[in-house]
Amino acid sequence: MNRIAVEKKVLNENQVLAEQLRERYRRLGILCLNFISAPGSGKTALLERTLENMDKGSRIAVLTGDLQTENDAKRLARFGFPVRQITTGGVCHLDAKMVGKHLEDWRLEDLDLLLVENVGNLVCPSSYDLGEDAKIVLLSTTEGEDKPLKYPSIFFKSELMLLTKIDLLPYVPFKADRARENARRVHPDMEIIDVSSTTGQGLDRWMGWLAARQEKAKGKPQSVGV
Amino acid sequence: MNRIAVEKKVLNENQVLAEQLRERYRRLGILCLNFISAPGSGKTALLERTLENMDKGSRIAVLTGDLQTENDAKRLARFGFPVRQITTGGVCHLDAKMVGKHLEDWRLEDLDLLLVENVGNLVCPSSYDLGEDAKIVLLSTTEGEDKPLKYPSIFFKSELMLLTKIDLLPYVPFKADRARENARRVHPDMEIIDVSSTTGQGLDRWMGWLAARQEKAKGKPQSVGV
Repeated sequence: MNRIAVEKKVLNENQVLAEQLRERYRRLGILCLNFISAPGSGKTALLERTLENMDKGSRIAVLTGDLQTENDAKRLARFGFPVRQITTGGVCHLDAKMVGKHLEDWRLEDLDLLLVENVGNLVCPSSYDLGEDAKIVLLSTTEGEDKPLKYPSIFFKSELMLLTKIDLLPYVPFKADRARENARRVHPDMEIIDVSSTTGQGLDRWMGWLAARQEKAKGKPQSVGV
Repeated sequence: MNRIAVEKKVLNENQVLAEQLRERYRRLGILCLNFISAPGSGKTALLERTLENMDKGSRIAVLTGDLQTENDAKRLARFGFPVRQITTGGVCHLDAKMVGKHLEDWRLEDLDLLLVENVGNLVCPSSYDLGEDAKIVLLSTTEGEDKPLKYPSIFFKSELMLLTKIDLLPYVPFKADRARENARRVHPDMEIIDVSSTTGQGLDRWMGWLAARQEKAKGKPQSVGV
């Protein structure tokens, strides 16, 4: 079997597992979001602010992926919600099997929201469905405005783009309008929210988006007999 | 054949081509450097400053990789040296075959230095030898200090780490000492140079490293009969 055939087989197997996860989430009314960005665009910082802003009784859990270290899980566990690190070894993306395995001994009945932080990589994670309801891509103001054009797949597949680190705009050559324009060339209907996890700017809009998205997920038709 | 067997075969084939490229470079006295980083760490900006600082008669060429767009080749072509874009389609890294193909109609005899800018990705490019003399990894001050621990392979394999965007240090929570310490935990002997392509800070040290590395490559024993 050649490389492309093997990749296709791996992706097909992943898709089957992803659909099983999606069906479980749907039955239980869980919203699952898959956060994807380059390394250092601020996924963990955004999740820290998100958990901090949640009511203490919220039924949330986080899975966070990295090649090595439990650093992110440690950062995120401080907010009192269940957090688990997925350490991929050398693998450049999360897949549905890893997610399923790390959910095995969690009571999903106790959850409304599952946040999955992917490995920092703008390329490979875009090919692996994790059973999520939506992908969210982060682009930071310290990167180039042309990233959506250079990495179109992930920007095309994401429901929302978070433009992060907007507190740094005065110090970097980044043109935010240009970045938004490029993102919309790839994905005309994508929502875009500007945020800074440092100053808090835009976080209320992000939390509002999240609450509305949870409502939308709950409103989905449930499978018959469940 | 399973996925791991196919990956091994692909990497073995790549290694054969990479060694052929390396032997050509050695015969011709060319220094080849492979620049790797996350998207947005400043590879292209550093190459712009590098070309700008070179004597006009320098025998340099650049290959620059991206999934899509010719943006980087356009930026780099302004300095008058030969530049060629490698557009990988969806592929997350450069490989030796792509490099060989894009060198086909260049007269390598006319070169002393070949700079290869890889696809923005801290994971996959670290597995693909391009026949280079050295890998150079860039880490920017807008990313996390723990990136060397999270992505150890590329930091272990790189001869030099460029700590980029140091002009932003006053505005970001990044602790440079901590980042250097983490890099040296993974790779104790790695050289580290702090640079800013915006203010020019550290560029003289980088250009000095590059000149010394070219001398070292020229001093290598040539193959007999060439």
